[in-house]
Amino acid sequence: MPEYRKDIILDEWVIIATERAKRPENFREEKIKVEKKEGIVCPFDRGNEQMTPPEVLKVDKNGNEVQGDGPWQIRIVPNKFPALVEHAEPLSRQYGIYMLMEGFGMHDVVIHSPEHITNISELDLAQTRLLVEVYVKRLLEIKKDTRIESVIIMLNQGKEAGASLEHSHSQIFSLPLNPPALMKEVHGTRRYFEKTKKCPMCDILKFELSEKKRLIYECEDFVIVQPYASRNPFETWVVPKRHFSNFENILEKERDSFAKCLKMVVDFFYYELNEPAFNYYIHTGPLHDSAGAHYHCHFELIPKFSIKAGFEIATGIDICITTPEYTADFMNNSGRFN
Amino acid sequence: MPEYRKDIILDEWVIIATERAKRPENFREEKIKVEKKEGIVCPFDRGNEQMTPPEVLKVDKNGNEVQGDGPWQIRIVPNKFPALVEHAEPLSRQYGIYMLMEGFGMHDVVIHSPEHITNISELDLAQTRLLVEVYVKRLLEIKKDTRIESVIIMLNQGKEAGASLEHSHSQIFSLPLNPPALMKEVHGTRRYFEKTKKCPMCDILKFELSEKKRLIYECEDFVIVQPYASRNPFETWVVPKRHFSNFENILEKERDSFAKCLKMVVDFFYYELNEPAFNYYIHTGPLHDSAGAHYHCHFELIPKFSIKAGFEIATGIDICITTPEYTADFMNNSGRFN
Repeated sequence: MPEYRKDIILDEWVIIATERAKRPENFREEKIKVEKKEGIVCPFDRGNEQMTPPEVLKVDKNGNEVQGDGPWQIRIVPNKFPALVEHAEPLSRQYGIYMLMEGFGMHDVVIHSPEHITNISELDLAQTRLLVEVYVKRLLEIKKDTRIESVIIMLNQGKEAGASLEHSHSQIFSLPLNPPALMKEVHGTRRYFEKTKKCPMCDILKFELSEKKRLIYECEDFVIVQPYASRNPFETWVVPKRHFSNFENILEKERDSFAKCLKMVVDFFYYELNEPAFNYYIHTGPLHDSAGAHYHCHFELIPKFSIKAGFEIATGIDICITTPEYTADFMNNSGRFN
Repeated sequence: MPEYRKDIILDEWVIIATERAKRPENFREEKIKVEKKEGIVCPFDRGNEQMTPPEVLKVDKNGNEVQGDGPWQIRIVPNKFPALVEHAEPLSRQYGIYMLMEGFGMHDVVIHSPEHITNISELDLAQTRLLVEVYVKRLLEIKKDTRIESVIIMLNQGKEAGASLEHSHSQIFSLPLNPPALMKEVHGTRRYFEKTKKCPMCDILKFELSEKKRLIYECEDFVIVQPYASRNPFETWVVPKRHFSNFENILEKERDSFAKCLKMVVDFFYYELNEPAFNYYIHTGPLHDSAGAHYHCHFELIPKFSIKAGFEIATGIDICITTPEYTADFMNNSGRFN
């Protein structure tokens, strides 16, 4: 029988309806990997650096900043086709009955490697660790700009997930406002905190670690878990055990653990489900507002296994065709989380 | 330059960033229409009625209810793989720190025709008018069930929009709760009403009819318009001029006008953009709550021209790559709205 499950942070129901469920291994993608076309010049490859706008950060494999033309491992450049631009005014004005504002913000591209790799899973653990370091470094730099209220670090893996260039890259959006999805979490966690004097994510971790039904992995610093009110098949969260609201405050040893967790998760999808498309993002608290007591930063990965159709768009209620217990069990049995 | 535009009902910003915009005619789909495979038996075709659960409503081409095996034009049947079921208890209970509830509700399939048509545009005007009549009839029937709080009437056109069977059909979901997307509109319109003593949708119609930049069509009863804070290329609304909150209260002559508008809109996409995938739905007020003063029911059609990627999922902010002014102009020049 289908069931409604409540997301206790957002205070919203999702529907878990497994009537049409596939077995976990049947989510495996059947596509054949596309080989890089001959003669296509990739602007993210080593040697083509002049094809992108000048970088805002460039580091070598040890994480040291590189000036000039030295060998690099990760570059952050402004997006050539930005959704937001820095030379705009973040001041709203009236337009008839409406409001508008110039598209102020920053839209960075994080090029994961000078090699033409097409999946984040092709980074080894040290390179993944470096990517985490670069995320934090850039976050701390952006935070100095008081016009920016919120930063989104995210990755679109695969064309079906919205990637327009196949060379593995993430994007960092810096916004002059706190976006609705973040504010829903901030308000929801505050509501829970006011009622219980506890952080809901801390409560979730405690419950999941004791029940173990949706638990994928636990180390000293992080927990990998599938959410009880899962909106998507194989939706996977990586949550720090220590309560902190802003990802830029991650400790040195937590960066090591997070890189290891991130690598295990993307490797699971790459090797066990044959490289499906997915989106991931870091939900981190508002840069300048204090949500510290109740907001708990975390990482979410959403595979593109289902289409958000008319029902989901019209209602805001997601229908998930698998239970997280079932897919968590499959992930545990893969032997990739230890 | 990109811009933020505010949705004055939801009080949320969207981003319009046209850096990567295509020309309107370049949204035209290039796919070749798939011919029906030989030997595949469609459960929605005339003659295969026994392949679906028994119908809850069956009408002939004049809208008269058909009993037994007589010729029919539209059938409503329960979904064979329902996301919600009627034999469940709509009572929530605690599960550890979480809440759950059996998947109570109704999940109807509206089979648009006994012929194997694959696009709603293949219905002629009289058949489209009959579909509108059937929607209203079913809504009025469901409303008698006091366990049901909210009804969603929607269509997934095409595989990319989530349709799993190609035979043209809509779906009607009956829910024991008011879903978040509806409640956001209800709260937003109430907030606007409390501040201004006016319905925001009535204000929008007034402004759009005078400015004409996003106006596609106007008749005595309805306005076809693209929203100022458009979340999707070619997002199109059909809005009644008369203020009323619940679609089931549509007047006889408004049903005629609505059918004409619906037909013009789906024909535009079918003929001018080569049958793209889309979702449409009717946003109608809560069945039993009184939102009548401020909530204004309407129809929305969302073509699947863009992928909701990591940014949209993580933030709840949509990036639209065309301005509604540009696409509205293209629709106006098509000569299909008169």
